[in-house]
Amino acid sequence: MSAHRSLSWLFTLGLLATLPVAFAGGIRGTGDLGLVIERTTGSVRILETSGNRFLARVEGLGDLSHASVVYSRDQRYAYVFGRDGGLTRVDMLEARVDRRVVQAGNSIGGAISQDGSLVAVSNYEPGGVRVFDAATLEPVADLPATFGDGRRSKVVGLVDAPGNRFVFSLWEAGEIRVADLSDRANIVVTRYEGIGVNPYDALVTPDGRYYIAGLFGEPGLAVLDLWHPGEGVRRILSDYGPGDEPLPVYKMPHLEGWAVAGGRAFVPAVGAHELLVVDLESWDPVARIPLQGQPVFAIARPDGRHVWVNFALPDNDRVQVIDTESLAVVSELEPGPGVLHMEFEPRGEEVWLSVRDENRVLVYDTDSLAVLTELEAATPSGIFFTARAHRTGL
Amino acid sequence: MSAHRSLSWLFTLGLLATLPVAFAGGIRGTGDLGLVIERTTGSVRILETSGNRFLARVEGLGDLSHASVVYSRDQRYAYVFGRDGGLTRVDMLEARVDRRVVQAGNSIGGAISQDGSLVAVSNYEPGGVRVFDAATLEPVADLPATFGDGRRSKVVGLVDAPGNRFVFSLWEAGEIRVADLSDRANIVVTRYEGIGVNPYDALVTPDGRYYIAGLFGEPGLAVLDLWHPGEGVRRILSDYGPGDEPLPVYKMPHLEGWAVAGGRAFVPAVGAHELLVVDLESWDPVARIPLQGQPVFAIARPDGRHVWVNFALPDNDRVQVIDTESLAVVSELEPGPGVLHMEFEPRGEEVWLSVRDENRVLVYDTDSLAVLTELEAATPSGIFFTARAHRTGL
Repeated sequence: MSAHRSLSWLFTLGLLATLPVAFAGGIRGTGDLGLVIERTTGSVRILETSGNRFLARVEGLGDLSHASVVYSRDQRYAYVFGRDGGLTRVDMLEARVDRRVVQAGNSIGGAISQDGSLVAVSNYEPGGVRVFDAATLEPVADLPATFGDGRRSKVVGLVDAPGNRFVFSLWEAGEIRVADLSDRANIVVTRYEGIGVNPYDALVTPDGRYYIAGLFGEPGLAVLDLWHPGEGVRRILSDYGPGDEPLPVYKMPHLEGWAVAGGRAFVPAVGAHELLVVDLESWDPVARIPLQGQPVFAIARPDGRHVWVNFALPDNDRVQVIDTESLAVVSELEPGPGVLHMEFEPRGEEVWLSVRDENRVLVYDTDSLAVLTELEAATPSGIFFTARAHRTGL
Repeated sequence: MSAHRSLSWLFTLGLLATLPVAFAGGIRGTGDLGLVIERTTGSVRILETSGNRFLARVEGLGDLSHASVVYSRDQRYAYVFGRDGGLTRVDMLEARVDRRVVQAGNSIGGAISQDGSLVAVSNYEPGGVRVFDAATLEPVADLPATFGDGRRSKVVGLVDAPGNRFVFSLWEAGEIRVADLSDRANIVVTRYEGIGVNPYDALVTPDGRYYIAGLFGEPGLAVLDLWHPGEGVRRILSDYGPGDEPLPVYKMPHLEGWAVAGGRAFVPAVGAHELLVVDLESWDPVARIPLQGQPVFAIARPDGRHVWVNFALPDNDRVQVIDTESLAVVSELEPGPGVLHMEFEPRGEEVWLSVRDENRVLVYDTDSLAVLTELEAATPSGIFFTARAHRTGL
C-alpha cells in the first residue's frame, strides 16, 4: 500500500487527526496541560491535569538543573529556561522542540511580556538580560547588567509587569532595574541603585504592582511600587535578616513562589525555620510562623485559605500546610525525599508535587490530602501548568 | 480526482490537519480563544485575542437574549446558557455544536464546578437549579427552589465555589442556598432563609470565599462567608438601598462582574448614578463614586488599577474608567450605542467591548485607550474568554 493510500485509509477511519499529535488524540484544548522538568536528563514530561497523566516526553533541552518555564498566551508553547543558557520553545501539542537557542553561558530564569510578544532571560554569565521575539526566538534586545567601573552583575528575580515591562535585580550591584519594552525601538531602562546588599531573588505581587526583592547581605526586603516608580525603593521588615538567625543556609528560598493571600504575603525566611507574614497595605510584620525546617517555596492554594511549604535539606522529605486565618500549621505530609516543587491546579482542587529522589510525581487532593495519582518521572523538579500564561509574574 | 486522492494531495501539502478545524489552521492552543454572543440570531462568534479576529460563527443556539458562558477546564468546550433554557456545549476547535439540551423553560445563567465535572443552570421556570454532567450533558441532579407552602422561586446569582459547591439565591423566597456536590450520590443543600427581600443577583469573590447577594426589595447586601458557613448570612451597606434614590431602574446591574481590587469591591448601585466602594475586610463603606448614568457592569482591569463601568439607557453609549486609588473618573469613552459588555484579556493589556446597536465589537488598548481593532458582529452582547476556565465564580 502506498503512503498516500495508507493515509487515506486512516482518514476514512477518522484517525488522521491524531498523527501530528503523537500522544494526545489529535486536536485538543491546552488549558489543562503542563510540564514537569526532569532535571538530570535534559527532558520534560508533558502532562494533563484532567486525566492526571503524562502524555509525552520531550528530550534535548540541555542542562535543566535549575529550570523554569513560561507559556505563550495561546498556551500552546512552553519556553523552558535551562541553567546552561538554553532557551527552548516546546510545542505542547506536537510534543517536540520547536526552536532552541543557547543565549548565554549560565542563566537563572525568564519571563514573558504582558502581550506575549517577548521572552526575556536573566543571565549570570554574561550578567544581564537578553530579550527574544517569542515567535521566532530572534534576539530583540541585550540589556547588560553593567555597573560601577564597567563590571557586570549577575541578574536575579526577573519578572514581567504590566506595560510590557521587565523588572529584575542585580546581585553584585545591589540594584533593581525596570526595562520598558512597550516600544522595541526605544527601550527605556530605569535604575534603582543602593537598594540593599545582594538581592538574591524577587517576586511581583499577582496584580503586578509591587516588586519585592529579598536581600541576602543585610536585613529586610526591598519594595518598588510599580504604580509609582518615581517614589523609589523602600525597605520593609528591617528587623528581619541574616543577623538574627545564625543557621547556615542549606538552600536559598525561591521568592517567585511567595504566597499572597487575604492581603498578606507569606515569605520564606532565609536560613531560619519560619515563615514571615507581612501586611501588603501597611507593610508591617503580622507574624512569624514556626516551621520544622528551612522553607524553600511557600505557595498559596488558589483560594488563599492554605499555604503549602516545602523545605531544604535535611527536611526536604516533607511539606507543611499553613492556615492563612489562624496562621497555624494544620497539616503535615511526608511525600518522600527531595520534594522540590509544588504546583496547584488553577482552581485549587489538586496539587502536584515532585519527589526527586524517588523519581515520582504525586497528585494530592487539597481537601482530603489523599494521594490521587502517582507517576514515574526521572528526577522531577519544577512543575508548571499552562494556566500560568494568563497570570502576571509567573 | 477521487476523494481519497484529493485528501492525500492535501496531506502532501501539509494542509490536512486544517480540515477538522474549518477556521483556525488546524491544531492550535486554546488559551487565547473566546466567544461573542450574537443575541438576536442565536449564534456565537469564536474569536482569537492574539490576532484580534473572528475565526468562525456557530449557529443554532436558540434564544441568546440573556446568555452567558463558562468553559471546560481544558478550554476546548464552551457551555452557553440561553434564555430559553437551552444549554449548548460548543466545540471551540471544531467550531460546532457538540451537544445541546433544552433543560427548562426560562433560564438565567450557569456555572461549572471546581473540578470541571458538573455544569449547573439556574432557572426561572420551573424555579430551581439543574445539574448536568459536563462531558455528556446527562442530568445529574434537580434542585427545585421550593419554599413556603410548596411554591417554587426563581433562582438568580448562581456561582461555583471551592469544594464542588454551587451557591445561588431565590428571588421570591429571599434565600441563599449552598449545594455541595462533592459526592454526587449524597448532595447536601443548606438553606439560609430570611436573607432579605428579593435578591436579584450575586457574586463570589475571586478567592471563592464571600458570596454577596444584591437586594432589590430592601437596603443593603447579604453576605455569606463560605469559609465559615455556620456563621450565617449578614447584612452589609445597610444605609444603601432602594429608599434613598428615587430614580427608576432602567436595567438591573449585573453583579457577577463586580470588581474586586486592592481589598475593595466596586459595586454598581441599583438605579442610582454611582458606584459603591466597600472594604472587603471590615465591610465598611469606603466611598460612593458619582457616575454619569446607571451602572450595569463594573469590571476591574486584571491588574486592579482601573475599573471600567458601562451604563443603562439613556447612557448606554459610553464607558467610564475609574482609578482605584484616587476613586476618581479618569477617562470617558463613547464606543457607540448599546455598549452591553466588556471583557479584559487575561493579563489586561486589551479589552473587548460589544456595541450592539452598531453591530460592532471594539478592541481597546487599556493603556492608551486607542481602538486597535473593529469587528462586525450581529447584535453582539456578552463576550467571554477561555481564561475564565481557570477562575472561580466566572
